[in-house]
Amino acid sequence: MTDLKGFLAPRTPTGTSAIIPEMPWHYSGTLLTVEYLTDPANVRAILPAELGLADENPGAVALIWADWQSCSESGAELLDPARSQYLEAFAVVRCTFEGVTYSRCVAIWVTKDFAMARGWFQGYPKKLGSLHVTRIFNRGKASPRLEAGAKLGASISAYDHRLASAIVTLRQPSETNGFVNAHKMIHSRWVPSITPGAGNSLDQLITMGGVDLDLGPAWSGDAELELGDSQWDELKSILPVETIIGGYYREVGTTFNGGTLLADKSNPSV
Amino acid sequence: MTDLKGFLAPRTPTGTSAIIPEMPWHYSGTLLTVEYLTDPANVRAILPAELGLADENPGAVALIWADWQSCSESGAELLDPARSQYLEAFAVVRCTFEGVTYSRCVAIWVTKDFAMARGWFQGYPKKLGSLHVTRIFNRGKASPRLEAGAKLGASISAYDHRLASAIVTLRQPSETNGFVNAHKMIHSRWVPSITPGAGNSLDQLITMGGVDLDLGPAWSGDAELELGDSQWDELKSILPVETIIGGYYREVGTTFNGGTLLADKSNPSV
Amino acid sequence: MTDLKGFLAPRTPTGTSAIIPEMPWHYSGTLLTVEYLTDPANVRAILPAELGLADENPGAVALIWADWQSCSESGAELLDPARSQYLEAFAVVRCTFEGVTYSRCVAIWVTKDFAMARGWFQGYPKKLGSLHVTRIFNRGKASPRLEAGAKLGASISAYDHRLASAIVTLRQPSETNGFVNAHKMIHSRWVPSITPGAGNSLDQLITMGGVDLDLGPAWSGDAELELGDSQWDELKSILPVETIIGGYYREVGTTFNGGTLLADKSNPSV
Amino acid sequence: MTDLKGFLAPRTPTGTSAIIPEMPWHYSGTLLTVEYLTDPANVRAILPAELGLADENPGAVALIWADWQSCSESGAELLDPARSQYLEAFAVVRCTFEGVTYSRCVAIWVTKDFAMARGWFQGYPKKLGSLHVTRIFNRGKASPRLEAGAKLGASISAYDHRLASAIVTLRQPSETNGFVNAHKMIHSRWVPSITPGAGNSLDQLITMGGVDLDLGPAWSGDAELELGDSQWDELKSILPVETIIGGYYREVGTTFNGGTLLADKSNPSV
Repeated sequence: MTDLKGFLAPRTPTGTSAIIPEMPWHYSGTLLTVEYLTDPANVRAILPAELGLADENPGAVALIWADWQSCSESGAELLDPARSQYLEAFAVVRCTFEGVTYSRCVAIWVTKDFAMARGWFQGYPKKLGSLHVTRIFNRGKASPRLEAGAKLGASISAYDHRLASAIVTLRQPSETNGFVNAHKMIHSRWVPSITPGAGNSLDQLITMGGVDLDLGPAWSGDAELELGDSQWDELKSILPVETIIGGYYREVGTTFNGGTLLADKSNPSV
Repeated sequence: MTDLKGFLAPRTPTGTSAIIPEMPWHYSGTLLTVEYLTDPANVRAILPAELGLADENPGAVALIWADWQSCSESGAELLDPARSQYLEAFAVVRCTFEGVTYSRCVAIWVTKDFAMARGWFQGYPKKLGSLHVTRIFNRGKASPRLEAGAKLGASISAYDHRLASAIVTLRQPSETNGFVNAHKMIHSRWVPSITPGAGNSLDQLITMGGVDLDLGPAWSGDAELELGDSQWDELKSILPVETIIGGYYREVGTTFNGGTLLADKSNPSV
Repeated sequence: MTDLKGFLAPRTPTGTSAIIPEMPWHYSGTLLTVEYLTDPANVRAILPAELGLADENPGAVALIWADWQSCSESGAELLDPARSQYLEAFAVVRCTFEGVTYSRCVAIWVTKDFAMARGWFQGYPKKLGSLHVTRIFNRGKASPRLEAGAKLGASISAYDHRLASAIVTLRQPSETNGFVNAHKMIHSRWVPSITPGAGNSLDQLITMGGVDLDLGPAWSGDAELELGDSQWDELKSILPVETIIGGYYREVGTTFNGGTLLADKSNPSV
Repeated sequence: MTDLKGFLAPRTPTGTSAIIPEMPWHYSGTLLTVEYLTDPANVRAILPAELGLADENPGAVALIWADWQSCSESGAELLDPARSQYLEAFAVVRCTFEGVTYSRCVAIWVTKDFAMARGWFQGYPKKLGSLHVTRIFNRGKASPRLEAGAKLGASISAYDHRLASAIVTLRQPSETNGFVNAHKMIHSRWVPSITPGAGNSLDQLITMGGVDLDLGPAWSGDAELELGDSQWDELKSILPVETIIGGYYREVGTTFNGGTLLADKSNPSV
């Protein structure tokens, strides 16, 4: 009898080909964050009806560049690093559901297919993009140091259109690297019926977050941020910048090991 | 009230950001195919239990390179061609379900995110790869012509590992460009629960195919094919070549406008 | 004794590793061209002092997208098409030297290293870019046909900044596909001394052109063109559009087999 | 009068478009090195006739992965990091010229055009490749730490063919990160005449090295290394592994500010 294995497609007798392996998934990397205020109406407009605006600073947005190395429990990906390294940049807002405040990713670009697959499973609305963020080395003249005055640049491009350019200048150590991406995530997972117009075969609201957080020292400072749009991607038009709150940098480690179903409107009969 | 639009994520008030737009999706391109026989036990091993082997030539495999331009009904993608062009290479076998013979894609690599997203919706087990196939131009010395003796090369690589190298030599006009990818597709669509080990929130068997086929003249001939594997991708190990059947080339147009649910084992409560 | 081979680096005993093989180099592909007028002062400003402005239409510019398949005399590259296919987009102006009118490429982006190497040898000022141009297939709804009303899009991006977006609408068959890129090329080849400030070890003015032209039917029509700049690339700022002349499309074949030295100011003692 | 600027092409009135700016060029990054012995005859075969084998360990080879951030004197590249980050992997041997021992790069792949251009100016035989090397982060479970037992992987691929896969296991702090790449470089810079068969317009032997070295702690250990070849690239066939010497890791900073002409055989009249 056939016994096909694989967390996601493709399934094979060994499971080796699966675009992503079984959880848990481990992450080591750096986060560069720009937080800013947009009109709360913009946040409201990008939330599904069942979610509400956060009580405080409902117009707060975090645009975050993550420069990741990741692996499964075996760590095998680390030895063929094409399979373990990627960047992602994502826009996060806050919202409420049944009285609880959550963070929610409303736009995200990544550089590898395994990261796209993990994201689709988790309800992150992932697309491919070309992403860059300045790294902090400890030697030589071609790098800032982790200290006051350090300047870090970052960019997002998709389909050869520049969607964001940022410069963060670190000023001082900080308790946190921001407050917008600080809650558990609330995400939508849906798959339309294969039949046009027949509704959604899958339609779930889930929550998830990282475990085993291993946090480096956080720094905060100033930020400049220029957003753009294209025919295929909205960033400036949906979350325009009104006031910059600040910029942050932190090295972090985290592990993802699943989440919880909050609500379901699936119709598996279509 | 919020009215979010978008066939797949991300959803926004306009729907512009969706990784793929509403069906129908149109395709114009070329198909280079190598058909070969593997041991039918290999095909059996890569099919889920509910599918059976085809009655005739159950070990037949088609490895196909498609060099596509595609667009939605508006055709807007054609004017920013970064968004409309991509390659895909895929392995197809045949199988039976409830007495009907289907084609089934068991491995596929593509070069763009929108093609990944369409595939995941359709049950194609898509991953990213680097794909190349010789083109047929009508002028100059750096191209075969569509005629006897034309040689076309093709390759698949993923995570910097070469998985397939092929050379097809066209010999004569042909009625078809192969028999393996000639049935409606039968595909699995599944999404695991966000909770580890809790089963599949979505688990469907669907069928689909193209409409409005617009076929150019087919040619057939000889083929050489070398397959490989990597730590992340199986091709040689799951579908090794025993006997080459032949090679084919055809320019084609097609449209995708949905499919049909065949069976459902979803558990939306997880 | 060592006998190292290779047209350009790296040299090895076999010559296999050379980034480009010996001439001749064959090309088959398509050219999408937008011709326009800029202020002749802009053309003057981008020419070295020893070159003069063309007598007629001195402000004419051609921006050309070439979608190439290329190979050496053996044709081996065609069978591993990763090595034979690339796109390039380039800006051409006209100029005079010693009473003769030439075409001159003043900016060019390509998608592969072998194309960069050929260009540097030929005096094309090549850089890498991400380039796209609509293709004309003969089947399906996702392609224009080669006929009146056909719309073709094209783009140039470098370092994730969009530098050009164009749309050409074909209107009628045409005698030519433009007049700006219609002369022999005049290019500068120079290599600075390895010692800073010591001048140029190589500094030549050369001329070159294709042979064995194999021209498909040309079409002309209207064009829209939007140019941009970045911190690393100038296009809009050096060659802004005053008036669009038109757009052109043609399938072409050509062969490059060397050129002629016109003038030399090299100082090989540095 | 026209006054065109730019260290290398393209030259414009501002110099902004030049693929590389004026020296000095600063580098911050990490070096992962595998040193091994090949038959000295292999090293002899890849050296030009005017260079001799090193007196000690003439068959020693270093294969080095550098994960760089780089910038010019202004540091502007660091704020648009697409322009400052790249990887390179290169094979180095030692040789003698006029009684002095030098290091010499005989094969190198990089990931960006500006790095190719710098290399061609310096006599590095640069081509594009896809390169990866494990990074050392300080947080989380998806990264080794800089300590005994750390395992780092690395790979080289070009034209979708895997050319090298390495795993280095760090064992102890080390005085150095190897001895093969420890001398000043001796490189060949040549440009063939634009006329086929007419000889070399430029043909120089130059030496160069870094200044302002800023070295982190070095670690050494064991290494595994698998080499490959393709139709376009030789590595295994020209420098096969006989005995692994060891592996090394070091964070480094350096600056390049030019070199010195050693010998010239240019013929600028062709």
